[in-house]
Amino acid sequence: MSTVEAPAKPFGTLTFEEKLDRLALVAVRVGLNLQPEQEVVISASLDHVPFVRRITEHAYKAGAKAVTTLYADDETILARYKYAPDASFDFTPKWLADGIAAAYGSGAARLGIAGANPALLKDQDPAKVSRANVATSKAMKPAMEPITRHAINWSILAGATPAWAKLVFPHLHEAEAVPALWEAIFKASRITGDDPVADWKQHGQNIAAQVDRLNEKRYSALHFRGPGTDLTVGLADDHLWAGGGGVCGNGIFCNANIPTEECFTTPHKDRVSGTVSASKPLSHQGTLIENIQVRFEGGRIVEANASAGQDALRKLISVDEGASRLGEVALVPHSSPIAQSGLLFWNTLFDENAASHIALGQAYATCIREGEHMDEATLAAKGANTSLIHVDWMIGSGEVDVDGVRTDGTSEPLMRQGEWV
Amino acid sequence: MSTVEAPAKPFGTLTFEEKLDRLALVAVRVGLNLQPEQEVVISASLDHVPFVRRITEHAYKAGAKAVTTLYADDETILARYKYAPDASFDFTPKWLADGIAAAYGSGAARLGIAGANPALLKDQDPAKVSRANVATSKAMKPAMEPITRHAINWSILAGATPAWAKLVFPHLHEAEAVPALWEAIFKASRITGDDPVADWKQHGQNIAAQVDRLNEKRYSALHFRGPGTDLTVGLADDHLWAGGGGVCGNGIFCNANIPTEECFTTPHKDRVSGTVSASKPLSHQGTLIENIQVRFEGGRIVEANASAGQDALRKLISVDEGASRLGEVALVPHSSPIAQSGLLFWNTLFDENAASHIALGQAYATCIREGEHMDEATLAAKGANTSLIHVDWMIGSGEVDVDGVRTDGTSEPLMRQGEWV
Ligand SMILES: [Zn+2]
Ligand SMILES: [Zn+2]
Ligand SMILES: [Zn+2]
Ligand SMILES: [Zn+2]
Repeated sequence: MSTVEAPAKPFGTLTFEEKLDRLALVAVRVGLNLQPEQEVVISASLDHVPFVRRITEHAYKAGAKAVTTLYADDETILARYKYAPDASFDFTPKWLADGIAAAYGSGAARLGIAGANPALLKDQDPAKVSRANVATSKAMKPAMEPITRHAINWSILAGATPAWAKLVFPHLHEAEAVPALWEAIFKASRITGDDPVADWKQHGQNIAAQVDRLNEKRYSALHFRGPGTDLTVGLADDHLWAGGGGVCGNGIFCNANIPTEECFTTPHKDRVSGTVSASKPLSHQGTLIENIQVRFEGGRIVEANASAGQDALRKLISVDEGASRLGEVALVPHSSPIAQSGLLFWNTLFDENAASHIALGQAYATCIREGEHMDEATLAAKGANTSLIHVDWMIGSGEVDVDGVRTDGTSEPLMRQGEWV
Repeated sequence: MSTVEAPAKPFGTLTFEEKLDRLALVAVRVGLNLQPEQEVVISASLDHVPFVRRITEHAYKAGAKAVTTLYADDETILARYKYAPDASFDFTPKWLADGIAAAYGSGAARLGIAGANPALLKDQDPAKVSRANVATSKAMKPAMEPITRHAINWSILAGATPAWAKLVFPHLHEAEAVPALWEAIFKASRITGDDPVADWKQHGQNIAAQVDRLNEKRYSALHFRGPGTDLTVGLADDHLWAGGGGVCGNGIFCNANIPTEECFTTPHKDRVSGTVSASKPLSHQGTLIENIQVRFEGGRIVEANASAGQDALRKLISVDEGASRLGEVALVPHSSPIAQSGLLFWNTLFDENAASHIALGQAYATCIREGEHMDEATLAAKGANTSLIHVDWMIGSGEVDVDGVRTDGTSEPLMRQGEWV
């Protein structure tokens, strides 16, 4: 990782274009840590064209052999729901999904730009939305595997869009909301210091120290207590805590999420019990799910309610057997800069870094010791869950306590009122 | 083909958005003749987003199962030439080319929107431009095969862009040039009548009648005479004339070019001799080649000159063995609406329909009787040329005469001063 291109000017004196360029630099140098002659595949919304252009320039400067951007367009997605024949909703262009998988297989890095309208599909038929999501997840499974296994260097970061900005800043006009969201993204993405590449290095070392402490503990479970929550999350056998950047299967160190504040590991798919209430709404593929409350027995959700989006929630957890079990548990201190911003981003990439969370669905093989070399059956025997989905879901807040439960059944305080003890 | 959605309002009373929508309708219904539950892959420039949105809506209305648009961006193409490492110019993402080929193989239709800046690469290193073109052509060969063989329904039409408009209307400001170019495109694309779908049907019947007359003649060669031109183009054995729409290998009738005014066939790759002068400049992948003059012996170019872009021309014809031989000869009357517009479009799709032309490189197998069922060696024995390139190149004008040469060596007038006799 090189700081050679990090600008020396104080952040406050930069123009918007210079700030955007700095985030693009961080995406390439910190997020991907792109290597000379590597290929990159970018996925973005048409709202992100100026940002993609900055990123592409930095990618070529870093030695990229080719930069290919696959653009999605909210308007044509809606046109599909309005006009396409019914059969469309069980169909996904497999050639494109397979092509992306082939790109990763041949050494390409992957950069995702989040920020499309989180409420895009809220007025669409939930049955069609769910069918389309299932079709996409199925087609994308080979492309998602090198991502979940961290076989390649990849990163996801966010860019503001008008629709997203209006949701985060409902009282501002669009002309003010979009720049306000960009500023919030810049702060949350830790690029406001004089040398963001060096700042990211320090931030990564801090998270790594916390991860090391958790790995030494070898807890058998975590116990969450808070308003509407009394949940025991058993941890997978040979689980590993992770967080911040890491070395991928291709040997490249990358930061897969910008921002990232979490320490996370793999729960045991059969050893989760109790009740849990979401501390923030969940925005899932265009539908907003609010005030989720769920009861687990033997690892499985046996009761699921929500004050809004309940249908979408129930469809989500019935996508497959693993969709009603946990694939991730993560701890985030309430003092995280994103929590402190006081904003609800309506976007998992940000909101999951404002609060401790759990994820329904697929587990990360890398969070099991030697897991990247195990087949699915061996991983499952350790307790790692399998599913087409992986949906993060916030359960932490300043009112939630967490205990670490040892293998002998005794426990010790880990977080109190959302902060590390 | 259905005229059900063709608007009844006179063209002159339509808003720009309504005119654009009408061209989008013609693209889907006339160009592709898209079938219910067919998939479509669109390639377009980021300048074409509003046009792509209109097309996508009409595609879904026609029953498309999925519409995928692959966007190119002039700015990131230039960033590559400015910043990418040298190895980049021999590399093309093969996963994407193979993905597109797989899409066609699984039944997708293909729509191309032309109109990107024709002079985009004029200041770039011609060696890099040529290497990049060769790499792309090689990677795209499997994807181009179903196109050149007309195995699937496909169509290419144009949308105005600021850079292109400035080239066509150098004396207008951008704000006037772009609408002027759109109007020229609308006229050339024959959508200014009250029922463009019906008008296209009539136009297709007129071209088909001319094609039938030429096919009955069984000429062995065409002889072009004009200023700087005295060229004999032998025709391939069992050549077939084609033009207008046609039934593709998948059984769907489509109009592969909008506009189209030409009748074309396959020349014999070894039987072209004499001298020919271009009647219009050639814009080839970002480079402008002007005042081309070329001499053929035994089918092969033995001398090639141009007043501008001569390097690009010589690189082009040395891409491979077939790049210096002909793969197409086409007749277009000088009374074609595009010729009559008096505009130089700097775009082959339009300019080739303003004048009789020849093409260097790959021949269309469909212009040999039963050619779509022949292997490469059998096609070559008939005289059909093979190459990675296919570049059309205008040689007709109001000053050019064409004779049809019979197998017994006698000849008859076919065109005089650019018009059918
Ligand atoms: Zn997480
Ligand atoms: Zn997660
Ligand atoms: Zn032609
Ligand atoms: Zn041609």
